[in-house]
Amino acid sequence: MVRIGAIGGGQLARMMSVPATSLGLDFKVLAEAENSSAALSATMVGDYTELDVVRAFAKTVDVITFDHEHVPIAILETLQSEGVKIHPAPHALAFAQNKLSMRRRLGELGLPMPDWAEINTRAELQEFLDAHGGEIILKTPIGGYDGKGVRVVRSVSDAEDWFDFAPLLAEEKVSFTRELAQLSARSATGEFRAWPLVQTVQREGVCAEVLAPAPNASDSTLASAVEIARGVAEGLDVTGVLAVELFETVDGRLVINELAMRPHNSGHFSIEGSVTSQFEQHLRAVAGLPLGSTDMTAENAVMVNLLGVDDQNDFVGHYDHAMQLHPHAKFHTYGKSARKGRKMGHVTVVADEAEWALAQARAAAAVLLRG
Amino acid sequence: MVRIGAIGGGQLARMMSVPATSLGLDFKVLAEAENSSAALSATMVGDYTELDVVRAFAKTVDVITFDHEHVPIAILETLQSEGVKIHPAPHALAFAQNKLSMRRRLGELGLPMPDWAEINTRAELQEFLDAHGGEIILKTPIGGYDGKGVRVVRSVSDAEDWFDFAPLLAEEKVSFTRELAQLSARSATGEFRAWPLVQTVQREGVCAEVLAPAPNASDSTLASAVEIARGVAEGLDVTGVLAVELFETVDGRLVINELAMRPHNSGHFSIEGSVTSQFEQHLRAVAGLPLGSTDMTAENAVMVNLLGVDDQNDFVGHYDHAMQLHPHAKFHTYGKSARKGRKMGHVTVVADEAEWALAQARAAAAVLLRG
Repeated sequence: MVRIGAIGGGQLARMMSVPATSLGLDFKVLAEAENSSAALSATMVGDYTELDVVRAFAKTVDVITFDHEHVPIAILETLQSEGVKIHPAPHALAFAQNKLSMRRRLGELGLPMPDWAEINTRAELQEFLDAHGGEIILKTPIGGYDGKGVRVVRSVSDAEDWFDFAPLLAEEKVSFTRELAQLSARSATGEFRAWPLVQTVQREGVCAEVLAPAPNASDSTLASAVEIARGVAEGLDVTGVLAVELFETVDGRLVINELAMRPHNSGHFSIEGSVTSQFEQHLRAVAGLPLGSTDMTAENAVMVNLLGVDDQNDFVGHYDHAMQLHPHAKFHTYGKSARKGRKMGHVTVVADEAEWALAQARAAAAVLLRG
Repeated sequence: MVRIGAIGGGQLARMMSVPATSLGLDFKVLAEAENSSAALSATMVGDYTELDVVRAFAKTVDVITFDHEHVPIAILETLQSEGVKIHPAPHALAFAQNKLSMRRRLGELGLPMPDWAEINTRAELQEFLDAHGGEIILKTPIGGYDGKGVRVVRSVSDAEDWFDFAPLLAEEKVSFTRELAQLSARSATGEFRAWPLVQTVQREGVCAEVLAPAPNASDSTLASAVEIARGVAEGLDVTGVLAVELFETVDGRLVINELAMRPHNSGHFSIEGSVTSQFEQHLRAVAGLPLGSTDMTAENAVMVNLLGVDDQNDFVGHYDHAMQLHPHAKFHTYGKSARKGRKMGHVTVVADEAEWALAQARAAAAVLLRG
């Protein structure tokens, strides 16, 4: 049986370790530090930007996958040339690391996107502003996440401090009614499966809630989202779980916002809400095993994130009160030290009634937040 | 937050580690050996029949619980007197270790049982045989499991080799239509919750299949089973998960066959089939946390055990074929080396349609058995 190694000791690796234990798969983690979220599965601690460290870890497993998208492509290409199996492969992961490359490739594939442009000069930025109503989105192509590296820009002076990081990515500010995410998986053998389209609710650039499935989505929207995900997965040759974040525009179109080639916050609902969770599916996909059913286990699932409120509350300390009031809520915490704004855990409620699930999940999370 | 320690590194401790990781609870295991089923959580390896070993483990946690029922009561009583919290407590666990004590106590509580007697002499055995139609069940009170230490006896000579182990437990051979199990949990705070009554199918004294809920059970049977479980849990002061194995007699009564004061094979369905699995519930119960909902996640769940066929097939090697044919099946293997008859894993299928779930679970297990 294939030994799977994940680079990165965050909560995604931690949550992969759970189905690995259930399935009896051999799962190892290269963590950044002792006491990482995935410490229980960490068989090595080291710097993933050092070739020798990653190579040594690779020798202990049969396939490499990722908790995050930050491993230098050059390291992965070297290991691949040495015969190491890597999923997603470096040529796919490169598109997740660089948003300009991603936009360029999605354009070649004819997939729906906001208008965009590569920006190297102040003149180019002014031109893009003029062409898009004087208000646009500017991004650093590399290293952004959870709202970092993203800025609303209304004049060239708003971006003055960023030109050192050029090329930048400018995008039209899409008039959207809501944000959606299409989660899917493509295995090393080419098999593809998609979960139901979900609605994501962002607060200050960070995912706050996920409603699965997305309420009131038309059949054509659902079909369109799956076809977009399939187009990305096959066009970029993604293996493993793929999350495609989408805007639903005021005129009912879907356009691609961001991509992630790994289990994603928008898919945490699937742990209890789907026959096969995104974490189990990712393991199956990168190990070359057949994919599991992505059917929902009930009509609805709601996930609410637990974001750190301060450097004291680890949420676990409020379990007593929250569990007493909410016996149907599923509580997850990631073993991370408390810090304001940090993703510390989440709560999921699965039920046939959407409104009840939402109310229960929000209330349970609120107890953990307030005590 | 309470640190939970389990004595015993078998599959039950392994399956407790899964919700411990999800909930972010601190969970440690005292294993018998390296490479135990629960090796990932094993923080100590040692002999649980040595006071010093168990005492050293107890110092690393806040509450002790169990993967099995074989820790000497004297050791637990000593640690309890030294202030160690133990769930279930030694005075409860003693009833699980000795079937004669258990029968005596259940009799005092007026709970329904087969006729039984303590047997010390050949004359007493002959008398019990004469009074019960010449065919009875004889058990060694201590150490039996999975059909071991249990024998059908038709004459005194059938038991000749067992009198060295007297006192023995003789029980009437109950005319039953089927075997059932009532799973429940009672927390350290006294809270009680029961799962739906299940039907268990035994082959050669070992659990082969579990149907949840038990098909065609009358309302009075369901209510009676829960009242029996509550009577046992409260009467014996059990904390944690309690499994009560029951016979349903030809005249529709329930009588108590065996007890287990820990997660139990009859409750493995609850991992996917219930909002709260028996393993999460056991952790909550022994940690003094409120218990979770025991509602089913669908109308039906079927579990089929994977018993070792030889010393080669670890089942994992046949995942490819089984997953391809059965995308709704949930596969569990315990990381144990292959051995004929050994409990190596199980398969669960959850669905609204009982017949479909049964057919899928049996077929998926059959692929893993045959390859």
